[in-house]
Amino acid sequence: MHLASDNAGPAHPQVIEGLSRVNTGYAMPYGADADMAAVTARLRDIFEAPEAAIYLVATGTAANSLALATLGAPWQTVFCSPVAHIHEDECNAPEFYSGGAKLTLVGEDDRMTPETLHRAIEREESRGVHGPQRGPVSLTQATERGGVYTLEEIRALGEVAKDFGLPLHMDGARFANALVALDATPAEMTWKAGVDAVSFGATKNGCLGVEAVILFDPATAWEFELRRKRGAHLFSKHRYLSAQMAAYLEGDLWLESARRANAACARLAAGLRAVPGVRFLGEPAANMLFAEMPRATHLRLHEAGAQYYLWEGSLDGADPDEPLTARMVCDWSITDADIDRFVAIAQGRA
Amino acid sequence: MHLASDNAGPAHPQVIEGLSRVNTGYAMPYGADADMAAVTARLRDIFEAPEAAIYLVATGTAANSLALATLGAPWQTVFCSPVAHIHEDECNAPEFYSGGAKLTLVGEDDRMTPETLHRAIEREESRGVHGPQRGPVSLTQATERGGVYTLEEIRALGEVAKDFGLPLHMDGARFANALVALDATPAEMTWKAGVDAVSFGATKNGCLGVEAVILFDPATAWEFELRRKRGAHLFSKHRYLSAQMAAYLEGDLWLESARRANAACARLAAGLRAVPGVRFLGEPAANMLFAEMPRATHLRLHEAGAQYYLWEGSLDGADPDEPLTARMVCDWSITDADIDRFVAIAQGRA
Amino acid sequence: MHLASDNAGPAHPQVIEGLSRVNTGYAMPYGADADMAAVTARLRDIFEAPEAAIYLVATGTAANSLALATLGAPWQTVFCSPVAHIHEDECNAPEFYSGGAKLTLVGEDDRMTPETLHRAIEREESRGVHGPQRGPVSLTQATERGGVYTLEEIRALGEVAKDFGLPLHMDGARFANALVALDATPAEMTWKAGVDAVSFGATKNGCLGVEAVILFDPATAWEFELRRKRGAHLFSKHRYLSAQMAAYLEGDLWLESARRANAACARLAAGLRAVPGVRFLGEPAANMLFAEMPRATHLRLHEAGAQYYLWEGSLDGADPDEPLTARMVCDWSITDADIDRFVAIAQGRA
Amino acid sequence: MHLASDNAGPAHPQVIEGLSRVNTGYAMPYGADADMAAVTARLRDIFEAPEAAIYLVATGTAANSLALATLGAPWQTVFCSPVAHIHEDECNAPEFYSGGAKLTLVGEDDRMTPETLHRAIEREESRGVHGPQRGPVSLTQATERGGVYTLEEIRALGEVAKDFGLPLHMDGARFANALVALDATPAEMTWKAGVDAVSFGATKNGCLGVEAVILFDPATAWEFELRRKRGAHLFSKHRYLSAQMAAYLEGDLWLESARRANAACARLAAGLRAVPGVRFLGEPAANMLFAEMPRATHLRLHEAGAQYYLWEGSLDGADPDEPLTARMVCDWSITDADIDRFVAIAQGRA
Repeated sequence: MHLASDNAGPAHPQVIEGLSRVNTGYAMPYGADADMAAVTARLRDIFEAPEAAIYLVATGTAANSLALATLGAPWQTVFCSPVAHIHEDECNAPEFYSGGAKLTLVGEDDRMTPETLHRAIEREESRGVHGPQRGPVSLTQATERGGVYTLEEIRALGEVAKDFGLPLHMDGARFANALVALDATPAEMTWKAGVDAVSFGATKNGCLGVEAVILFDPATAWEFELRRKRGAHLFSKHRYLSAQMAAYLEGDLWLESARRANAACARLAAGLRAVPGVRFLGEPAANMLFAEMPRATHLRLHEAGAQYYLWEGSLDGADPDEPLTARMVCDWSITDADIDRFVAIAQGRA
Repeated sequence: MHLASDNAGPAHPQVIEGLSRVNTGYAMPYGADADMAAVTARLRDIFEAPEAAIYLVATGTAANSLALATLGAPWQTVFCSPVAHIHEDECNAPEFYSGGAKLTLVGEDDRMTPETLHRAIEREESRGVHGPQRGPVSLTQATERGGVYTLEEIRALGEVAKDFGLPLHMDGARFANALVALDATPAEMTWKAGVDAVSFGATKNGCLGVEAVILFDPATAWEFELRRKRGAHLFSKHRYLSAQMAAYLEGDLWLESARRANAACARLAAGLRAVPGVRFLGEPAANMLFAEMPRATHLRLHEAGAQYYLWEGSLDGADPDEPLTARMVCDWSITDADIDRFVAIAQGRA
Repeated sequence: MHLASDNAGPAHPQVIEGLSRVNTGYAMPYGADADMAAVTARLRDIFEAPEAAIYLVATGTAANSLALATLGAPWQTVFCSPVAHIHEDECNAPEFYSGGAKLTLVGEDDRMTPETLHRAIEREESRGVHGPQRGPVSLTQATERGGVYTLEEIRALGEVAKDFGLPLHMDGARFANALVALDATPAEMTWKAGVDAVSFGATKNGCLGVEAVILFDPATAWEFELRRKRGAHLFSKHRYLSAQMAAYLEGDLWLESARRANAACARLAAGLRAVPGVRFLGEPAANMLFAEMPRATHLRLHEAGAQYYLWEGSLDGADPDEPLTARMVCDWSITDADIDRFVAIAQGRA
Repeated sequence: MHLASDNAGPAHPQVIEGLSRVNTGYAMPYGADADMAAVTARLRDIFEAPEAAIYLVATGTAANSLALATLGAPWQTVFCSPVAHIHEDECNAPEFYSGGAKLTLVGEDDRMTPETLHRAIEREESRGVHGPQRGPVSLTQATERGGVYTLEEIRALGEVAKDFGLPLHMDGARFANALVALDATPAEMTWKAGVDAVSFGATKNGCLGVEAVILFDPATAWEFELRRKRGAHLFSKHRYLSAQMAAYLEGDLWLESARRANAACARLAAGLRAVPGVRFLGEPAANMLFAEMPRATHLRLHEAGAQYYLWEGSLDGADPDEPLTARMVCDWSITDADIDRFVAIAQGRA
């Protein structure tokens, strides 16, 4: 019953097989391998973006930081939500890669709205050289709280960005989970909605460590390549990044894995909904669920060995009914049996 | 007949198997996996350094840049040879990670001597705040030209560094190749000789992409961890780095692979020595050979599909006898048959 | 009637005379001038801090950025108010000088409280290497909205900082104005209240361009010197910085000038208080006043050539009674006649 | 007898007077002062460059670092001589401001030649993303060893830069001294010879602390302004920078002062030429002279209180005839009497 994070789960066996498959003989290093050419073609096809520049890196933080540094400038500020991974969980990597840009926090939770975004950008009003200059907008899809922006919402944010002439970045660490939740096409969820660059996550959804950066405007490709190299994120034996991504895309494994994870989360939600004292913080849309549960419920789960983050509150405390917030994440590999057992324990049936 | 680089060869099957081995169930992310604990223990044992702080990253450039940034400061200069990988092949990654440090080039080739190093450090004499301050010394073992520093030579460089109170870093992208060439222990080649931090390469010698940074003084460990994270080099699914390194160390695979590569290079050298017009640039000590060969010899090899870098000169040219420099690198997987065929073609026998 | 900013006013004649005074013969460059030795001694005396390290730079942004970079680290976040000059008006200079640190905004206005500060620091809770690490606290005295922290308030903030082991920086661009408002000693307002480093402003209060950075812990002095040099803020003909500061301190000119500016502001406040429709945003404590005034009042002042910032709202608009916010700053040189004329126009008497 | 540096001399009285002149009433801050408009117009006129973007900063290191950062990129290398001020005397400021660019040292002394420059640029040959990318070329005029590039020499360097598509920067800390030595126009010595940006020094030649950056291509002006601000080099009371530069240019004071300094140096050279054992290192062309003199000569000068740098060697030593190298710099204010006395002592006549 591991619901702590989708980065704690295993890689999909087909991805491991992909590594074995390419592990013969010599291959051109640094991204000139044949597998990368195939990955590029496949992603361009999937995104209906025949001109897109596509690069692989091994971590989501690298994808985000390199993309934002390429889209922006050191004297700018990046607009993002206050719980954005780039703000909270990357130890200032965006600031480092950008050479000292700032992050401006928009709104109060995981979702920027056109209104909060517009206000935040407008607030960085004209102070000439004195204030930080307006820079890229970055949204996370699915969000850090398990929500999913609708296509309309993304388009609306894209329009605000465009009104101010700012580029729009999507942190897609859970891109596939959001995509299948929306039943949309990758193009619809990105460039057709105004997105200029995507961190296309694969690690959390069944790979070992690989993310694609997709730049719909190839004009910045060379700068990105230089930034990737001097950031030490260009792999010599690049075929092993390519092979992961190739296997991930092959036969729509990526969509299938995301559907599994989302279905597990839906099953979990359905089960927990019936538990007395459980209250969801936002409707779960993808593979992540935040919910308040009574301390007693937590204690039962805890004793049974269930793993998940206690997001707010503490197990220590006298009141068994006090609600404490849990974050529960379903990865592609979690079984129905595990979910059902988790629910049963939460319900006090097991 | 692939002699272009040891980063073009495959990973060792045991390393791939290692990935499969750990690919079950959930594992703590970000280096808290059980395999990393085992790797740390094993490397401490191998290096006879029970206190050493040990971290994994995926690229050699990351290992070097993070280590040097941790050892030095932005207002310092790093002393290295003019052909050092950190100077020539990392697109200013050390400058980026250090926040703007400088590199001072020592000597004329791949090998610093105590004299050239002493002179270079001394030259950055006291100019108060005006000049760059003296910073870490970085040597590459084996060198970028295929040479190997003897233990005495490393100790002598270490003493110069110590005389000036400067830390000593070893870029060990081909650490194993040098070690087996010297028939030394890891401790002898590093901390016993005055080395403070090592980039312990594994990628070139049979892994997919993993390098250990070994800090003999654990006082800087936390700073290193923060630098690794904000450099975006901390893997979430860290077990796949750990597993590579574990397999690499298991049963001394790392030493066996290096011996193979070195033996192949020795076989190549023995064969080429007999070819008329061939002249070695330095005695090959590890798995890399630089040699002048007549243009005609190059053309024969080229036509036969042999792959290696033409380091200096051009195949185009009228004179069949003009010597052109080749760089030939043997990876762990190259076969005797390949070497023999290469030599035969060079000799004009095939 | 110039109330736009105290950086638009002239230098005090005695400061210009100071420049003439030192303008004879040769002087050691780069801070080794005799005048700097005297300035250091004088400031140590004034601050009752015989060990303090003291440096001069020419701009307040340099003082703040260099001080914060010296107190903190690139992976940290600086705690400051959302209207702090370091956040709003330095075009990411603190981020640049620190090598990519973050700023965390505390509270809603110009004044941090022990509670908001404690909460903000606590919120950057332990996420290991993932989140930004807690860094320096920076308060502005007098604040960017014309307020002045009492000694008790500073002490309380200092205690919060100390509880978390964080250094406390004071942006004293208007140090003298705050000091005379509090009728306190420099020591009381700084190190006795827990302040570790001060940007001691002089430019706004009658100099051409000079600020002292005072580090009460001299252990970081050398690092500061290196940062100042590589930031290009070390003057060769340093005597002209020293001479400004010497003249500024001589005969307590700095206190006298601040008293004048504060008195002018009090006179302004007294006059405006009687104007119908005028509402102060916070009680003016030093030399800066924020007030809402009806559009009609603004238009009268505007037509009469009065200069000040319209902080919020627009002169364009139909309603003559609509309140628009003005920022009015009194510099040391403003005359009573100017103030009285300004008030008279505001009152509709002139 | 102060010949240590032209940064140890006083400011010209007319420059101090210029400060008094502008010290009345209020002036727009941050470069919007009327004096700056006049300075801009005047410098455009002097340089025959009606479109040039012109900015003032207070130090030569700021001028150089900001100009190079604007012309280049963090992944590039700047080509300069091994004794360039930007390399030897700015504590890595160019690396800091550029965000981690490298400096490639060209040739062996203070003068790059078209051949050494071409070779150095060519050497940074195409290694794709691996090596540093080719960046700006920076020459110093007059050089750090007192030499002056002829117009032909600058043009030849400019052509090499242009052949590779690289911008050319001139560090003109002693611009005026070189200009009068060549009897050329500012346009001839800069943009007509291929120079894209100039650090136009004024501090050493009679100001307190002001340098102009002249960008002949105004396309980069806004970026420069942002870099200046976030580098903390934008003065609030900017009029005092403007006033210095205005006075410096007024009535060709800058040329007159440079002629004086050069004439003093020529007088010094003429005098020393007659001293037995004196050997010039390069013909003095501007206001700086490097010469070997016997230890005994040095000791006589030293005892008489003459101040200059002993560039190589040590006064301690037994041999009175051993040649030790002196650097002697004449500033605008040095008197013939001082020069004559210095020579007389050197000659043993006084």
